[in-house]
Amino acid sequence: MASVELPKKYKAAVYDKPGSISTKIEELDMPEPGPGEVLINLSHSGVCHSDMGVMTNTWAQLPFPTQKGQVGGHEGVGKIVKMGPGTENSGVKMGDRVGIKWMAGICDACEACRAGADAQCFNGKVSGYYTPGTFQQYVLGPANYVTPIPSGLDSALAAPMLCAGVTVYAALRKSNAEPGQWVVISGAGGGLGHLAVQFSARGMGHRVIGIDHSSKKELVLEMGAEHFIPIDGTDDVAAAVKELTSGLGAHAVVVCTAHNGAYASSLDLLRFQGRVVCVGIPEHEPVPIKSANPQLLVAKALQVVGSAVGSRKEAIDTLDFAARGIVKTHYTVEKMEKLTEVFKQMDEGTIKGRVVLDLS
Amino acid sequence: MASVELPKKYKAAVYDKPGSISTKIEELDMPEPGPGEVLINLSHSGVCHSDMGVMTNTWAQLPFPTQKGQVGGHEGVGKIVKMGPGTENSGVKMGDRVGIKWMAGICDACEACRAGADAQCFNGKVSGYYTPGTFQQYVLGPANYVTPIPSGLDSALAAPMLCAGVTVYAALRKSNAEPGQWVVISGAGGGLGHLAVQFSARGMGHRVIGIDHSSKKELVLEMGAEHFIPIDGTDDVAAAVKELTSGLGAHAVVVCTAHNGAYASSLDLLRFQGRVVCVGIPEHEPVPIKSANPQLLVAKALQVVGSAVGSRKEAIDTLDFAARGIVKTHYTVEKMEKLTEVFKQMDEGTIKGRVVLDLS
Amino acid sequence: MASVELPKKYKAAVYDKPGSISTKIEELDMPEPGPGEVLINLSHSGVCHSDMGVMTNTWAQLPFPTQKGQVGGHEGVGKIVKMGPGTENSGVKMGDRVGIKWMAGICDACEACRAGADAQCFNGKVSGYYTPGTFQQYVLGPANYVTPIPSGLDSALAAPMLCAGVTVYAALRKSNAEPGQWVVISGAGGGLGHLAVQFSARGMGHRVIGIDHSSKKELVLEMGAEHFIPIDGTDDVAAAVKELTSGLGAHAVVVCTAHNGAYASSLDLLRFQGRVVCVGIPEHEPVPIKSANPQLLVAKALQVVGSAVGSRKEAIDTLDFAARGIVKTHYTVEKMEKLTEVFKQMDEGTIKGRVVLDLS
Amino acid sequence: MASVELPKKYKAAVYDKPGSISTKIEELDMPEPGPGEVLINLSHSGVCHSDMGVMTNTWAQLPFPTQKGQVGGHEGVGKIVKMGPGTENSGVKMGDRVGIKWMAGICDACEACRAGADAQCFNGKVSGYYTPGTFQQYVLGPANYVTPIPSGLDSALAAPMLCAGVTVYAALRKSNAEPGQWVVISGAGGGLGHLAVQFSARGMGHRVIGIDHSSKKELVLEMGAEHFIPIDGTDDVAAAVKELTSGLGAHAVVVCTAHNGAYASSLDLLRFQGRVVCVGIPEHEPVPIKSANPQLLVAKALQVVGSAVGSRKEAIDTLDFAARGIVKTHYTVEKMEKLTEVFKQMDEGTIKGRVVLDLS
Repeated sequence: MASVELPKKYKAAVYDKPGSISTKIEELDMPEPGPGEVLINLSHSGVCHSDMGVMTNTWAQLPFPTQKGQVGGHEGVGKIVKMGPGTENSGVKMGDRVGIKWMAGICDACEACRAGADAQCFNGKVSGYYTPGTFQQYVLGPANYVTPIPSGLDSALAAPMLCAGVTVYAALRKSNAEPGQWVVISGAGGGLGHLAVQFSARGMGHRVIGIDHSSKKELVLEMGAEHFIPIDGTDDVAAAVKELTSGLGAHAVVVCTAHNGAYASSLDLLRFQGRVVCVGIPEHEPVPIKSANPQLLVAKALQVVGSAVGSRKEAIDTLDFAARGIVKTHYTVEKMEKLTEVFKQMDEGTIKGRVVLDLS
Repeated sequence: MASVELPKKYKAAVYDKPGSISTKIEELDMPEPGPGEVLINLSHSGVCHSDMGVMTNTWAQLPFPTQKGQVGGHEGVGKIVKMGPGTENSGVKMGDRVGIKWMAGICDACEACRAGADAQCFNGKVSGYYTPGTFQQYVLGPANYVTPIPSGLDSALAAPMLCAGVTVYAALRKSNAEPGQWVVISGAGGGLGHLAVQFSARGMGHRVIGIDHSSKKELVLEMGAEHFIPIDGTDDVAAAVKELTSGLGAHAVVVCTAHNGAYASSLDLLRFQGRVVCVGIPEHEPVPIKSANPQLLVAKALQVVGSAVGSRKEAIDTLDFAARGIVKTHYTVEKMEKLTEVFKQMDEGTIKGRVVLDLS
Repeated sequence: MASVELPKKYKAAVYDKPGSISTKIEELDMPEPGPGEVLINLSHSGVCHSDMGVMTNTWAQLPFPTQKGQVGGHEGVGKIVKMGPGTENSGVKMGDRVGIKWMAGICDACEACRAGADAQCFNGKVSGYYTPGTFQQYVLGPANYVTPIPSGLDSALAAPMLCAGVTVYAALRKSNAEPGQWVVISGAGGGLGHLAVQFSARGMGHRVIGIDHSSKKELVLEMGAEHFIPIDGTDDVAAAVKELTSGLGAHAVVVCTAHNGAYASSLDLLRFQGRVVCVGIPEHEPVPIKSANPQLLVAKALQVVGSAVGSRKEAIDTLDFAARGIVKTHYTVEKMEKLTEVFKQMDEGTIKGRVVLDLS
Repeated sequence: MASVELPKKYKAAVYDKPGSISTKIEELDMPEPGPGEVLINLSHSGVCHSDMGVMTNTWAQLPFPTQKGQVGGHEGVGKIVKMGPGTENSGVKMGDRVGIKWMAGICDACEACRAGADAQCFNGKVSGYYTPGTFQQYVLGPANYVTPIPSGLDSALAAPMLCAGVTVYAALRKSNAEPGQWVVISGAGGGLGHLAVQFSARGMGHRVIGIDHSSKKELVLEMGAEHFIPIDGTDDVAAAVKELTSGLGAHAVVVCTAHNGAYASSLDLLRFQGRVVCVGIPEHEPVPIKSANPQLLVAKALQVVGSAVGSRKEAIDTLDFAARGIVKTHYTVEKMEKLTEVFKQMDEGTIKGRVVLDLS
């Protein structure tokens, strides 16, 4: 591939009033890839609920307030149009489709990176918050850390996989559940949950019990769950899980919802040596997991583990599952100019599935 | 070894007034080993705080009240004096020294046993509560589940290893800590803790930080800890641990104390991907571990796991460490007749180290 | 279930001329279950190639010659008709359908049993060789070691799962391959291989490449393999595997065939850190695996592991997969009296799929 | 630390006649660190037998002939004197002592790097062969891949740890041996072996049996081995190992020697489920490991794994063990100008311990 003629300016949606739901299209100067970097011409970006938290400054965990002019977004897909110096052995080349995810770049030098836990990098760059994100037509990324997109996979379909997809895939790997074992997905009909059900049931051979509001029953079963327990029509969820699992309880519970209530009883759904994986992050002040008391943990040798997004390798694996058609997400495509409107609908809870921006 | 002449009657210390601190020496009929069983002439039995809980019916977890006439005790060592039918390939023979531990027998048929988690056996027999225990001169045990005692190890020294020893060894294995990594032992100067420090530092090559009251400092360092943090003289224990561990926190924390306060802050002592192991069981109503909230667990990919006693194999391994002199417990020997007095001293907190009964 | 009226005598097929292919129907006395044992009225038994080895005394590994009058067979299914003493908590009861497998009973006391490796029990009883096997209408088995058969699973279908099924399931677990990773099944169209393909592709989410003679192509793909490589039409199998796996090689190779030739090149099919699992046992003198040299093992950090049959738990898991319809075996049913003929056909290589004896 | 005045030229020992034992001191131009690189003023470099193989072009595995003028060496320690652009978050800074090891730099983008197997990097740079090595006063290295040297550790002592040390530490981790288990070190008195004994016995809590020629007995026992088996005075090494391990064999064997003979019998020293780790690389044509046949591997469920050098993290861990005084190597210091002589002595086998060059 020869060189590509690049414009001097391009369009980006920036947070013009951080703290409130508002974005504005601006013209930005084309950046130049530095050593180890590539310049990507983005075609699509998913819009995630975490973007909302960054934009409105309402997420308690965020270490600093979002700046005016910040470009948000952390699920972007596009083509490499320029390679910076020192990117020869980076595994990608001009014209390759690649993705930008929540953890957009790592230091590759801290204790976490050295331990292979790059999602926990002490100096990691969060896309759309620490660095300019994917709500724009061009973005820079580290050549050896962007995620290659498999050739058969549609860009719009790939985008949400870079966040929700990799998050649930990594969490399911942490569940330690083996093929044929029982996995409860809590919040099975949600943005994370409906992907978790597919990965678990179709990708990993687990037997899946989905828990969610009764309105999600059809969706959850369609995604591959063997059983569904409606949270709004079940007095004793633990008893219901036991009944479905020969009286023993599940091998693992993956909590994809952000409700403290779902966490409170999560350990009660487990059999001896079972494991709860925490994925959904409740808002407001942290509340201890009610069932995580020493007595119960010791008596049944239970485990509770946290899982955050996923590693570079897990992102690549996730897209491989998506490219093979095993996992799909429901999405609608909107133009970049509609971003503020999309966030408003998200705030009102009227969005079905995921929205993916067309950035062209 | 030829047959042994056995008396018709023998001495046992029974709980004559369950609910209060009281034991009484009685004469019992010599039992006959059934299929798969051996008869053991006990020489020593440790006296454990759990025996107190069973005797006084004050342990919330116990499923049924202790019966009058129950023989307590779950840390017994003695010689096999009779073999029941079908014990040919049981791995033990007449004259062997063997031990009885908390989990005295298993069904070897439930899901837990099948998964190799015999300490979680659904039908397990707890010595001194479900079955006649080790405060007596003779006891029956399953030939393939009693714990062989290595030849070089003193019986009085072996007895406490069958409970406290195996419990901390199993917990340290569950810590996932590798040689050279930092392990915090919470309650490092206690009955469980001082053994945990030895196993961790001397047996497993960990770098140990002991936490306890300042009065235990000398003991804890003598047991092999590299550092000691006095709980009564430290404003910020987490900061103290971080300072000792290059600012990162420990790889694992093993909570050997039964204080909810020690659990509350346990996760704060960990580095990313670190693990808390719960061992000590607080009394009264279960309290959630305060730092075990989804936000912290997810952000640092932490893990909390429970560990109860240990498996048959872990008991054997524990005694091997003891036989090699790597782990020792401090103990004093008392005659069987002093048992009530021992319990009273235990209640008053005036016992130093472990008491081992001489049952001869 | 009340008691069952049992006949005094029953039919068994015995090896009347060990060393040659010959069996004879005899009347045997009804046995009485001892402590811990159950008596099973068998309805079906698979006929395995290993039975041939035992009968004809041609398997080099066998520690002693087969005795005249030995009842062979190690894949039996039937109903419990009598319970011996001490079988209350054994997990099975009168009327339950249960299975007998290769490893029919263990000592539960040796180092291997203690380590959870019951398939390696030092004192294990091999059905149809160390103990009377399953080519008969009644057999004794240890109550806590027989394999419960799930209610929905046909007995004839269950029988072969107790040997070939559990063997390949255990081997695939040892492959360390994760869902989505590439697994090569060598001998994919054979008795072990066609089950391995199903477990791997359908049960565990692997991407399967089957290798066998071109005549097996259709079968292997039907079983779920993503690709097939004909051993008789491929110059360079390693190159073919690399081409299918992005130039990297497979994550694991499971050698289900007994050909030394298949072993010879097995490591060449792997990517870095890949693993060969040995399952098929070649006849005659042991030959080292040609590619298992230190240079290659070190350069690519490869692993070679052996896997023999499977544990009690793995047998139960295997039958669960079968009951869910994920794994099936092709079989034909023959009357017990046809056993000699069946062995003759096996020797001539004219049997398609597995033969299951109807023992009624 | 302010900037450092650097000379224009500096001294290096180059291979002036690759294919024969010859080096020559030359003056080279001072290099300039590129993006992500640091310039190191080396004070010490170990001299390893692998350097000999590279220099003389006699190592079969090497992919291309060594070039005239190549600077050899792969165990270098020195201070950072200049930081290239983009090295802010690299974990090292001006004045830090750091080391260069065999794998001097990685692509951090290939499948192996992504899987955390950086020692298997497809594009890795081998120091002293692919890139200028450590037999010189200044060298460039990747800021995030050089190995920080703990402050308390002498540079001369650190140098050999970067090759032999990390190699045996990584291999012992791959042994899967737990504290208290039996590990056989084959070639226990050699350059790799004497370090392996120390790591295993003192660092990891294993029980070590060293095997080597009888002349090494004293050294091996001094390093921490519990037992020594002289290869030249033992008819049946497997029997000797079994006798020391309760008749069962070792849990793991780490083959540190490069003799095919040591590999041939290595599996015979194992108990069920044991593991051989291959470290030493025999010269000449690869020979299959004689005992690695399917029959033995299957019957005892054995494992054979290869281990090459170690990862960046393992290098850091290795130096931590050395800094704590747990592992030491014997060495003598020679001036850079003596390098050819050192290689000649190495060729004659007259060197005791390791030679470390003083590069000042």
